[in-house]
Amino acid sequence: MAEEVQNGAENNGAAAEKTTTAVVFSAFKPQLLVQAPKATDAVQFYKSAFGAEEVSRTLHPKRKAEQELPLVLSAELKLGSAVFSVADLADEAAQLKSEGSGCVFVLETDDVDGAIATAVGAGAVADGDVTEVEGAGRVGKVKDPYGYVWTISSPAKKAVVDVEA
Amino acid sequence: MAEEVQNGAENNGAAAEKTTTAVVFSAFKPQLLVQAPKATDAVQFYKSAFGAEEVSRTLHPKRKAEQELPLVLSAELKLGSAVFSVADLADEAAQLKSEGSGCVFVLETDDVDGAIATAVGAGAVADGDVTEVEGAGRVGKVKDPYGYVWTISSPAKKAVVDVEA
Repeated sequence: MAEEVQNGAENNGAAAEKTTTAVVFSAFKPQLLVQAPKATDAVQFYKSAFGAEEVSRTLHPKRKAEQELPLVLSAELKLGSAVFSVADLADEAAQLKSEGSGCVFVLETDDVDGAIATAVGAGAVADGDVTEVEGAGRVGKVKDPYGYVWTISSPAKKAVVDVEA
Repeated sequence: MAEEVQNGAENNGAAAEKTTTAVVFSAFKPQLLVQAPKATDAVQFYKSAFGAEEVSRTLHPKRKAEQELPLVLSAELKLGSAVFSVADLADEAAQLKSEGSGCVFVLETDDVDGAIATAVGAGAVADGDVTEVEGAGRVGKVKDPYGYVWTISSPAKKAVVDVEA
């Protein structure tokens, strides 16, 4: 497969001929699955660790037994201008989930050290020290109690916005 | 752990006393790792499948051998107002990555069927048919060639924005 010229996607030419790429996405929301019934705790953790705000929560209509907690189908959390969600993974076999090489969630902030200290205070585990990376500022990593890895870094230097404007 | 009242995070009271949650995050960017050297192909796939636009690419400064392709340290892609990145996973042991219960990437669009058709045309595999979910509109799932699962759904009905305003 030939490599396309960078920013070629803006040019609605060749790509649009092959596939009708007129689809517009209004939102991109990563959903983090956690072993049921830990979603409620996970939401609390993301609030404490990153200052996330819960914007909505949908509970599973059925419980397996009356005494069980209702499972969280999806709890949406706002983090800066982004939204992600947390969901209880109740039935490993029934739920399709990513099996890629793994992902990392990158959070950019001017206060990398403060963010890591807060996350660790809330129960995350720091992976090594915060380091100064040439051209990238300060970078640190934490693993949260649910296995997800968060890279906390200084804001990207390059202007990412308005490239196609 | 007691469940907090929803939207409790807005109220800067109790939480702020325990941990100084004054950290502001300017960006949240999921990074999808793919087996090296597939990142270049993966970027091309996400352009074709979702109309993503590449905004920047950082190559690894070192190659293992002269004839090898330079590995992609991080290629940032814009998808609507969100940014995610793709990176070559060169050394499984050296790179910390999430080992949670798995994640799913949710994309919202008014044209769920068109989005799925385009993604499948680009090489994704549909997981079952698009279904009409009560209160949620149309929902479908695809797995991409790199193992990541994307849920394509109608825009969330609830007003997610300005809840805390």
